Amino acid sequence: MDAKLIAELRAELGPEVVLTDPATLGTRSHDYWAVSHLRRFRAPEGETGGALPGCVARPRDLAEVQAVVRFAAARGVGLMPFGLGSGVCAGVLGDPATILLDMGAMDRVVSVDPVNLLATFEAGCNGLAAEEAVAAHGLTIGHWPQSIAISSVGGWVSTRASGQFSTAYGNIEDIIHSIEAVLPDGEVVTLGKAPRAAAGPDLRHLLMGAEGTMGVITRVTLSLRRQPETRAFTAFYAETMEQGFEAQRRIIQADWRPPVMRQYDAPEVFRLFSAHARGEACLLIMVHEGPAGRVAAELAAVKAIAAEAGLTEADPAATEGWLAHRNKVPEWTDLFKLGVIADTIEVSGSWSQIGPIYRRVMAALREVPGIVNASAHSSHVYRSGINIYCTFACRPEDAAAMEARYLECWDRALEATAAEGGGIAHHHGAGRLRKAYLHHDLGAGGIALLRQVKAALDPKEIMNPGNLLP
Amino acid sequence: MDAKLIAELRAELGPEVVLTDPATLGTRSHDYWAVSHLRRFRAPEGETGGALPGCVARPRDLAEVQAVVRFAAARGVGLMPFGLGSGVCAGVLGDPATILLDMGAMDRVVSVDPVNLLATFEAGCNGLAAEEAVAAHGLTIGHWPQSIAISSVGGWVSTRASGQFSTAYGNIEDIIHSIEAVLPDGEVVTLGKAPRAAAGPDLRHLLMGAEGTMGVITRVTLSLRRQPETRAFTAFYAETMEQGFEAQRRIIQADWRPPVMRQYDAPEVFRLFSAHARGEACLLIMVHEGPAGRVAAELAAVKAIAAEAGLTEADPAATEGWLAHRNKVPEWTDLFKLGVIADTIEVSGSWSQIGPIYRRVMAALREVPGIVNASAHSSHVYRSGINIYCTFACRPEDAAAMEARYLECWDRALEATAAEGGGIAHHHGAGRLRKAYLHHDLGAGGIALLRQVKAALDPKEIMNPGNLLP
Repeated sequence: MDAKLIAELRAELGPEVVLTDPATLGTRSHDYWAVSHLRRFRAPEGETGGALPGCVARPRDLAEVQAVVRFAAARGVGLMPFGLGSGVCAGVLGDPATILLDMGAMDRVVSVDPVNLLATFEAGCNGLAAEEAVAAHGLTIGHWPQSIAISSVGGWVSTRASGQFSTAYGNIEDIIHSIEAVLPDGEVVTLGKAPRAAAGPDLRHLLMGAEGTMGVITRVTLSLRRQPETRAFTAFYAETMEQGFEAQRRIIQADWRPPVMRQYDAPEVFRLFSAHARGEACLLIMVHEGPAGRVAAELAAVKAIAAEAGLTEADPAATEGWLAHRNKVPEWTDLFKLGVIADTIEVSGSWSQIGPIYRRVMAALREVPGIVNASAHSSHVYRSGINIYCTFACRPEDAAAMEARYLECWDRALEATAAEGGGIAHHHGAGRLRKAYLHHDLGAGGIALLRQVKAALDPKEIMNPGNLLP
Repeated sequence: MDAKLIAELRAELGPEVVLTDPATLGTRSHDYWAVSHLRRFRAPEGETGGALPGCVARPRDLAEVQAVVRFAAARGVGLMPFGLGSGVCAGVLGDPATILLDMGAMDRVVSVDPVNLLATFEAGCNGLAAEEAVAAHGLTIGHWPQSIAISSVGGWVSTRASGQFSTAYGNIEDIIHSIEAVLPDGEVVTLGKAPRAAAGPDLRHLLMGAEGTMGVITRVTLSLRRQPETRAFTAFYAETMEQGFEAQRRIIQADWRPPVMRQYDAPEVFRLFSAHARGEACLLIMVHEGPAGRVAAELAAVKAIAAEAGLTEADPAATEGWLAHRNKVPEWTDLFKLGVIADTIEVSGSWSQIGPIYRRVMAALREVPGIVNASAHSSHVYRSGINIYCTFACRPEDAAAMEARYLECWDRALEATAAEGGGIAHHHGAGRLRKAYLHHDLGAGGIALLRQVKAALDPKEIMNPGNLLP
């Protein structure tokens, strides 16, 4: 962006909205993608290791968002929405030709309605602040991404986020009541009105998972829950991941829905549950919540099903410990200092596919030179299948190869998943990292359809150019 | 359509696919919309009372669907998809300028996968045949629209259908795994692959509820359930609809989910549950299903909550009786012979809105000259609200006024709902009947967005012209 353009935008919106100081540009030049952090780590002191946005626009209300969008549309300038920067797939990546649209100043809890269990938040509202606002009324959003303390409500919608309690409470698409957004032409829409409707296609889905490419989410109304009466914990050992998957399949298909069901393979048990490690056993942990009578029935049933499937009981303290420490987000730089680059890759498959996906992804990752860890756990369970969260860590002999090795790990894991018929993106979104693999999930026809929709909504291609669409 | 065009289509697809005999055209010239039936009833013997399609194309496989779509696109001819004709909002209405695309010959159960609880059906597969095919494996789709015996799987998707067991098992959008469709340009897409994905916007939603305006659904894969271990029944009297709504709100918000929860107002109790009528009391019936332990806990909890809300127990035989007779679909002509036109109008609202919506719609209907019944029941329950199903019957002094009175009832009911902030289309879709009211749900911005998407997918406007979009 040339200085004249920035000056025009500043003249229109004021100096407190349009920012160009290096500190602001620097902290908004990328999200939590490991490679962006690596580039910054390896850059000279005070530099980011990547490009900066042309400027940062930080609107304070809907009208200012509209003004920025209209400015961008009129000048054909790119616009990159930014929530709180916790994305991990490079949905945000500095581009000097674009305006970084920082939604962080629109962070209000607009309303909480304890009768209808609805709450409205501005898009930049911090996730934990949102949860605490409804918790004060004895309610919960029921959406607990690991990033809850550093992510925004608008970001949850934009990336089609999942929370740790999804098996009972659903993913973000099951929690969203309505979405207010500014479309690329500057018009405001509020999508979603009734508890449920058959009034044409559900247009809310154009914005969920669009990662800033279809418009700017400005407000979100979520459908809440009352806080559960009771909570209980179970834990079980499985001899193999396959045995644990089979137990989970039986539990969910018998119509039990513990909100949390996570199975860790042996390497992860050693790393994350060392006090509970038992030989090569995998560990399945479950949190049970709800009315006391139902939780009691669920505990009895789950124990019986697990035993029938060949699992043995473990100390539920393992589950309780996980709950207490579950939202620790890794600091990439701590690993970089050790010459290690790591990440998690969440993929999914049907029950028949997931065992082979797990084996094949693990084998593929272990072929990468310098790999020091390849492990996985499952965390979201459905009637027809389950996800796995693969973790890799790589310490190449030559630290300059860290980025290349990282990309190789991703490539191998996604291609291995696709080769077994699995889904290559369970819940972190696609961003710039995964867009080249999106065809595995969407097919050529789906990609073409996505392009048609994008061209219709954003004919000038101003919204997050370069993101999501392959 | 001129004869030359039909001859060309027949030459391309064969005389067994392209039909023009009056009987075939006549039975596919409308759906189950009451007014189409009224017009036929009032027409001279052997006539339909409305226009016929230009011709009927009845493809037998995907390639033939593509051929018809490409033919229509190349010639700019309209194409009206037809499942089994059970729609009630005039999504299908004879038009001599269009090809009626009858999906009824594509009715196969393609596969049933009892491990992953998935089953694939061709779009024209009868709903009850689909349910019976999975029931043979001990499974259930869990989707029970009243029309199950006369509707198609593709039609369920196209109209965003709801089933009677939706409160626990979800509406059709919660049951769909993937959709195969032919887009207006003739390309095939298969949307939906993984159990859940964050791979861009969920494009399946472009076809759900599109009512034939965005493409032709050819196959659907549904995510099934195992048949429940136990079933139990409860029934309660409420003094007012509001008291019954409040009990339902407390039950669902305490995280109990009886698959069926239906509350009938006093006029409906007299008409449909005469043996159980008790003064002016409303009747709340519930079906409870699932593992025995959970059902037992649910029964105890629901009884306690109902009592606290002031409800009194009724004979559960009322519920059992409903279950046995629930899928009786009215024969319009039986009513027409009595000079009566009737229909149901399903709308929805939040818990705060639903009482006022009920009162206002009932009052609005009772003002229509000739009205002989205005009553309602609720049938689909959500954390944030509930639907009501309004039933009206009108017997104008002058039988020629039946159609006008019918449209007046609809107009009054939808405007009354919208005035209280409710949703004007819970699950039958919009069709040609409700499209003029769609702006109440979508707003001007939503309508404009829907038009943008339609123009992108179907720039030649060949798909079901005149339907859905206002």
